[in-house]
Amino acid sequence: MAPPDALDRIHLLRALSAEQRAAVVRQCRWRRFGLDEQLIDHWAETSDVAFIVEGRVRVLSHSAGGREISFDDIEAGEFVGEMSALDGRPRSASVVALREGTLIAFLGPRPFQDLVAGHPSLAMAMLLRLSGKLRVATDRIMELSTLGANNRVHAELLRLAKRGRIEGKISVIAPIPVHSDIAARVSTTRETVARVLSDLSRDGLVERRPDALVVRDVSRLETMVEDVRGSV
Amino acid sequence: MAPPDALDRIHLLRALSAEQRAAVVRQCRWRRFGLDEQLIDHWAETSDVAFIVEGRVRVLSHSAGGREISFDDIEAGEFVGEMSALDGRPRSASVVALREGTLIAFLGPRPFQDLVAGHPSLAMAMLLRLSGKLRVATDRIMELSTLGANNRVHAELLRLAKRGRIEGKISVIAPIPVHSDIAARVSTTRETVARVLSDLSRDGLVERRPDALVVRDVSRLETMVEDVRGSV
Repeated sequence: MAPPDALDRIHLLRALSAEQRAAVVRQCRWRRFGLDEQLIDHWAETSDVAFIVEGRVRVLSHSAGGREISFDDIEAGEFVGEMSALDGRPRSASVVALREGTLIAFLGPRPFQDLVAGHPSLAMAMLLRLSGKLRVATDRIMELSTLGANNRVHAELLRLAKRGRIEGKISVIAPIPVHSDIAARVSTTRETVARVLSDLSRDGLVERRPDALVVRDVSRLETMVEDVRGSV
Repeated sequence: MAPPDALDRIHLLRALSAEQRAAVVRQCRWRRFGLDEQLIDHWAETSDVAFIVEGRVRVLSHSAGGREISFDDIEAGEFVGEMSALDGRPRSASVVALREGTLIAFLGPRPFQDLVAGHPSLAMAMLLRLSGKLRVATDRIMELSTLGANNRVHAELLRLAKRGRIEGKISVIAPIPVHSDIAARVSTTRETVARVLSDLSRDGLVERRPDALVVRDVSRLETMVEDVRGSV
């Protein structure tokens, strides 16, 4: 039922012709997911790749105690689940929808592998993507291995500030990041995030406005992070 | 000077013809490294891929305090440094030789990219390799996020035991693993590794022989690890 151009906004598939993309559309299984609904189950034996056509998803896992460890938030136009689709091994994490009505196109492992094997530019795009993910994972291993929870919250705040609206030495982060999201991204508790942000706020480095979190001096925050990390 | 068959033992290149491999041999820069000598510097602007022709290498980084965090040990026949060769971004870690006389063939980023783009089977092998590395990294992030240092040492000992010589419920790990190597792999201190192994030894689960470390009950160790990890 999906129109032939339904996958036109998936970046990976832009190297294909319109006809080739339409052929992929016909091979996909389409489904909408509700907020927080799981589209890939860590423990299920599935190996489809999932193109995010509309909405947004989060890749995550849980500790034995139920604490969430999040790996990545993925936007419409991207995809997820490619590792099992390529190597046939179990899922490395779960994936849930972050928006009501998230629209997913699932493509089976064989057609996905054929697609990658048949188009060198697509294979190269996949290599760059996996390489990028491996770099992020390597940085996170270094942070978890060498920084305390406080400093990891600083480092995450710095990442958010760099993606925020920069005004001179200030960065405006909107909407206000959810404490539990920061906690899941740097593997700590919500309570630690709340305490660190409140300390930074008392120091005047962070200001909480009704609709945004403001870092009042990005370079001072950067110095705090770099001093501990020692990556010079 | 390298003979035309000098790269025949590199697994990735087996899909090529002998002539194609000989052409790659001619494009490489060859060099031998001494024990602990650095072949890739985290902070240098190089982007060659390094084929390990003879010897063995370790991928590692250091904390600001100088503690070693190790990522992988790589054997002859494999390669390292492919991420910068693919994406042109800085090195994510350093690489040092673990054996005297380790022989490396360095291939520049352009010829490496041409090789991958020109051979779909080689691109697919690279995708499987990066996918495998990303799985290992994801598992390590989960361990660092959810397990204490003691339990991470247990988990590493379990991995070593599963690769050891199995005799019934016993595993013989030879040679005896070096405490600082275990510490670098699970991001803790040598002292913690020594203490955990000595505790396990007092419990009778581990026995130190002159030439090997023996895990006396692999499934009991597995239960200890799984109970904490809760991955069921």
